[in-house]
Amino acid sequence: MSYEALNERTLVDYTQSRASMKTVFSSDARLSVREVGDGNLNLVFIVVNDDDPRESVVVKQALPYLRVAGESWPLTRERMRFETQALSLHNDLAPGLVPKVYDHDGEMSLVIMEYLADHEVMRMPLVRRERFPCFVDHISSFMARTLFFTSDLFLSGPEKKELQARFINPQLCKIQEDFVFTNPYMDSDENQWNPNLEAEVRAVRSNGELKAAIAEVKESYMTNGQALIHSDLHTGSIMLNKTDTRVIDPEFAFFGPMGFDVGAVMENLVLNYLSHYAHTPDPDLRSDYQAYLLDLVRGVWNEFARKFDALWLENNKGELMPAKYWDFPGGQEAFAAFRDGYVLDVLQDAAGHGGCKMLRRMMGIVSVWDITSIQDLAKRAQAERLAIRIGSRWVLERNLVRDVEDLVGIVLEETEGVEA
Amino acid sequence: MSYEALNERTLVDYTQSRASMKTVFSSDARLSVREVGDGNLNLVFIVVNDDDPRESVVVKQALPYLRVAGESWPLTRERMRFETQALSLHNDLAPGLVPKVYDHDGEMSLVIMEYLADHEVMRMPLVRRERFPCFVDHISSFMARTLFFTSDLFLSGPEKKELQARFINPQLCKIQEDFVFTNPYMDSDENQWNPNLEAEVRAVRSNGELKAAIAEVKESYMTNGQALIHSDLHTGSIMLNKTDTRVIDPEFAFFGPMGFDVGAVMENLVLNYLSHYAHTPDPDLRSDYQAYLLDLVRGVWNEFARKFDALWLENNKGELMPAKYWDFPGGQEAFAAFRDGYVLDVLQDAAGHGGCKMLRRMMGIVSVWDITSIQDLAKRAQAERLAIRIGSRWVLERNLVRDVEDLVGIVLEETEGVEA
Repeated sequence: MSYEALNERTLVDYTQSRASMKTVFSSDARLSVREVGDGNLNLVFIVVNDDDPRESVVVKQALPYLRVAGESWPLTRERMRFETQALSLHNDLAPGLVPKVYDHDGEMSLVIMEYLADHEVMRMPLVRRERFPCFVDHISSFMARTLFFTSDLFLSGPEKKELQARFINPQLCKIQEDFVFTNPYMDSDENQWNPNLEAEVRAVRSNGELKAAIAEVKESYMTNGQALIHSDLHTGSIMLNKTDTRVIDPEFAFFGPMGFDVGAVMENLVLNYLSHYAHTPDPDLRSDYQAYLLDLVRGVWNEFARKFDALWLENNKGELMPAKYWDFPGGQEAFAAFRDGYVLDVLQDAAGHGGCKMLRRMMGIVSVWDITSIQDLAKRAQAERLAIRIGSRWVLERNLVRDVEDLVGIVLEETEGVEA
Repeated sequence: MSYEALNERTLVDYTQSRASMKTVFSSDARLSVREVGDGNLNLVFIVVNDDDPRESVVVKQALPYLRVAGESWPLTRERMRFETQALSLHNDLAPGLVPKVYDHDGEMSLVIMEYLADHEVMRMPLVRRERFPCFVDHISSFMARTLFFTSDLFLSGPEKKELQARFINPQLCKIQEDFVFTNPYMDSDENQWNPNLEAEVRAVRSNGELKAAIAEVKESYMTNGQALIHSDLHTGSIMLNKTDTRVIDPEFAFFGPMGFDVGAVMENLVLNYLSHYAHTPDPDLRSDYQAYLLDLVRGVWNEFARKFDALWLENNKGELMPAKYWDFPGGQEAFAAFRDGYVLDVLQDAAGHGGCKMLRRMMGIVSVWDITSIQDLAKRAQAERLAIRIGSRWVLERNLVRDVEDLVGIVLEETEGVEA
């Protein structure tokens, strides 16, 4: 059928018309539909068999405009192609760490996938100080596998370029270029910030050294086609429980710098850390959970780096470089030095990208729920001021970073002695 | 017509069948054809009207394999699409600095363009110590214009990515990845080197620090999609005379690092410099011409950098960054610092890429005529040893470079006291 935006009423017939759904739903299933989309680009429906809630799917359909900005911001529905392609590839490369895909319909710009009934978007339980013993292992595997296997370290030159051509994603890239790297730091109508932060926002906008550094980081986002990155890997794109973790919403996927994904995860953990000055008044509970969050930051990086290097050693067949290139006396040491340098570059990129993303959440089009759920604007400003300081330092000091402890150290220095 | 490789006999009929040729050749023209291709990928024919040699064209047709390696190295004829697209774009962006295009035929994988009867490939006259008073101005304009206008500094994000998609060029990239950055530095059947250089070649192949650095430079070639680069801009791709300069053969064009083009021009001038220890025995004539060549290196860089920056200031409408981003007290200084950093990165990349290309010419599949025309292998080895030392230092010291004088300085240090 030709494109039309579905609604809770039309979706039942649509779902029942898809052959693929015969393997999901009983033939006599009575389907209920809820629209649950809180994103900015899409409709999201949950479809459940009233008689057996284990039979369920999610239907995600692209709208032809950016939902948060209304119909004035046209976006082609083609972006659903990128999400579907990326979800399929992620299922191959990181099975069990993304929702299963049951069906997709190019004409209708939609994908039908596994409904994660037992999972929760990560932000909320982090605000409730929950702990996720498998998170570090799962997210580091997701990033190491999806990034390594789509890079020049695993693919041949032609394979990589053919994949890259399928993921040239101009419109979704433009959203990140504008809203992460540009508009928050200058006058732009959609920017929002806490009125208590007026001075800090003005200071960022007129900090020449910081603005030049942000421009450099943006350049790397726009030119460094290192691997197929998720490109929106904040804690709102992670659904999990104590034993299972899934990465969702890869519609921004394109060939960009690995550090953008790694930095997004680390940065969101730091923003959650800062939110607890408001969410967790009890100092012992707070410092205990904040220490846990910093251990997650360390774990995410260290496990990512360890797994990435192990994948490289085990699957060294990419264009960069063939094993034979390192076949000389001392070659294994040179190869190790090259790998170490490569992974350190990813960490430095993560600092730059994570820092920019931290800043943009304080003064751009959209903050994060961890912070916006702080009702008291003065308390909220305390966390936000710290985020601006930490984000600025991650950006400015990114090329000096040698270890994840340097990034954690900036968080500790800037929050030393801070009380709720 | 469906593809067939043309020859001197079939080309006359083919040329006369093209409507576009009616504006080039008189209706009663008697056409003569010569095949002159000395490249590795193509047939090249010159077609002239016997009665009026001013009426002439070049027909360049892609072969379905890499000519130098025989039919065992298949290459799709699609590469002619890249050459035609790039030639057309270069005509728009740098008019007068490339051959005019009269016609192209996708089915036949050929392009018909201006015959440059009064021009010569640059290598030969450089060996004869000729001077070209317009060369620095012309080549710096070509590079500044083609690179700036295809970068994120001029194009919007979506415009750049749509252009990039048209220039995903896997097979030609693979040739450079193999033959510039990989195979020369390990055992590979096609490698050739001067037997007097056995020790030096072995030393490069087992220099761990250098090999790790070459891998880093290769990574930038494979991932840094900065602008539409020519990607084979040696002095064999430049045809010129005292007043006119044309860049030919852009079939390798893709979105890569600007420094690869700039480095190629500078590196080829240095190889020519070194060749004069053999070609110009007279020490005064030699040192005089060598000083001229180093002035060309300086001029190429300084004029490129000056013009590139001027284009940026005059046409600051690219995605990176909008003028408004720099609109704050001190913003112009910050913008200037960002531009300086950007251009310095290009110079450092040029050092890395130029250094690799210098090395590969000494020990890879194909050298340069400036060097191979030295008959005496011992004399030839003298130039080649110097090239290996200079190329290695350009690669290893690339991140320390602050100015073109640093690159010229390495040439002067390594050649100090050298006699023919």
